[in-house]
Amino acid sequence: MANLLIGIDVGGTNIKIGCFDAHLKLLKKTSITTDADTGPQAVVKKMLAAIGGLVKESGFNLSDISAAGIGTPGPADYKAGIITNPTNMPAFKNVPIRQMLSDGLHCSVVFDNDANVACFGEFTAGAGKGVNDMVFFTLGTGIGAGIVSEGKLLRGSGGNAAELGHTIIYPDGRLCNCGQKGCAEAYASASNTAKRAAEVLQTGEKSSLKKLLDKNGQITCKDVYDHLKTGDKLAKKITDETAKALAILCINALHATEPQRIVFAGGMIAAGDILLNRIKDYFNEQIWKLKKETVEICFATLGEDAGIIGAAALAKKIKQ
Amino acid sequence: MANLLIGIDVGGTNIKIGCFDAHLKLLKKTSITTDADTGPQAVVKKMLAAIGGLVKESGFNLSDISAAGIGTPGPADYKAGIITNPTNMPAFKNVPIRQMLSDGLHCSVVFDNDANVACFGEFTAGAGKGVNDMVFFTLGTGIGAGIVSEGKLLRGSGGNAAELGHTIIYPDGRLCNCGQKGCAEAYASASNTAKRAAEVLQTGEKSSLKKLLDKNGQITCKDVYDHLKTGDKLAKKITDETAKALAILCINALHATEPQRIVFAGGMIAAGDILLNRIKDYFNEQIWKLKKETVEICFATLGEDAGIIGAAALAKKIKQ
Repeated sequence: MANLLIGIDVGGTNIKIGCFDAHLKLLKKTSITTDADTGPQAVVKKMLAAIGGLVKESGFNLSDISAAGIGTPGPADYKAGIITNPTNMPAFKNVPIRQMLSDGLHCSVVFDNDANVACFGEFTAGAGKGVNDMVFFTLGTGIGAGIVSEGKLLRGSGGNAAELGHTIIYPDGRLCNCGQKGCAEAYASASNTAKRAAEVLQTGEKSSLKKLLDKNGQITCKDVYDHLKTGDKLAKKITDETAKALAILCINALHATEPQRIVFAGGMIAAGDILLNRIKDYFNEQIWKLKKETVEICFATLGEDAGIIGAAALAKKIKQ
Repeated sequence: MANLLIGIDVGGTNIKIGCFDAHLKLLKKTSITTDADTGPQAVVKKMLAAIGGLVKESGFNLSDISAAGIGTPGPADYKAGIITNPTNMPAFKNVPIRQMLSDGLHCSVVFDNDANVACFGEFTAGAGKGVNDMVFFTLGTGIGAGIVSEGKLLRGSGGNAAELGHTIIYPDGRLCNCGQKGCAEAYASASNTAKRAAEVLQTGEKSSLKKLLDKNGQITCKDVYDHLKTGDKLAKKITDETAKALAILCINALHATEPQRIVFAGGMIAAGDILLNRIKDYFNEQIWKLKKETVEICFATLGEDAGIIGAAALAKKIKQ
């Protein structure tokens, strides 16, 4: 037996799958559409077929798989192995995904939050290499997060720890999709950065972004950063607010679990140093003076592969 | 050898010491004045003498001590065992407290933050019994905190994790003693609850507290809660703000490490159910709706002994 490891990263649109050797070297990877509305049976069947294909292309058989890991958007009952009620996949109510995969692959399966899985990928093979304590934020539609403490993912009592995007930093502030007011996510995710810009534009504030909004009916976070680079004042104001909210998340994460490194991932980090430096500046300006803090704030390095690598790395741990 | 355990809880004013048997049963306890200005050598000497006395009164000798634990106010270099620069004890700069005690007692010594130690006391023998994941807040001059995750104190990369009182919940808000703006501590500690009341009184707002402030030159947190109970409107406003800040701390702690129980301790919990119920109400009103949360919010049960019990319980763990 070749002790292959399978890493699966489920998103609302696509499912990424990687086939790794026992040392976490990527042999083959693929991406299939999720088509969540076809229902859990059909989606799992398609996943198993894709895994079978990957393993075969790598020159092995299904029986060579030692363990698999899968990440899905939270919240779910990760301890019990059940997708309970995901926002973007209404057909997936109370689906015992861990058991279904385990039955299909005839191996142990580890199931975790998609952000935890990506966090563990970066921790194992990316921006978290060399440290024991790390916090991870992924900036997309929402803000996903993961915490590694003493080398282990911090999972909490029910597997839903590290939902740091839903910590409240502006009480009575913007309404978040989760139902709370003033979550960090409601300000600093990529979607909400774009949304805040659009809202200010609608009040009549002048900006080079206005033309874009009128033309496309919407603006993206990338638009905001593009116009920041050409000196637009509104874009600066909006991205400053985003960086400030992210810096507060960093300060609060430092005071919670004291990581050595804080890693940002997700679409928004394409903005580059202009974003990273503003987060660091605000962090340094606001952080307490009781002791000197040496936490490093940086960007992720694995890109879209973080999820499959993390899922496979978690699978590897089952066997250790 | 009787395998005695010694628990030491160092405060700015008093040092509490307990002598426990191997099963963490309290045999004898005492309290001595800290007199921090006499310097570390003198204070440690006094501590050792007090421990010697306790052990003797319990019918044993110093050689019967198996291990000791000590908690001091943070931040410090807990990993290295050194009190670095405590706010309330200027004479204690770079004091290798763990080594000094270990040399004096001829046993292993565990050294941790005072709030962590009290947290571990409640976790082991008080309000945290029966759970694996707990968050602890102590409401005094500041807000100390502790996190237990999967049955272990979460210490962070340098031993300064769980400084949740210094998480920012009102960006650009009240200046905290730590140098940050908008920390939870700057609103909801006992001292800052009293301070906020005094500040509003000075703007001329009417309240039954005014007479007290004029008479004593200051008001305490207890005064505020006393006047809340007799229906004073200002006292209600101030304590509502405190409860709201504490509820936000609870929400953020839940999303960070997902405890099953959140325990409040410290002088302010003498306010009783009027405080606890207001925290719970605000928590239930503000918490997300993505899933039902079952975390219990409650008060500590060990009172002033939490520190010595926790320190002894940590000492016991060294020997396991």
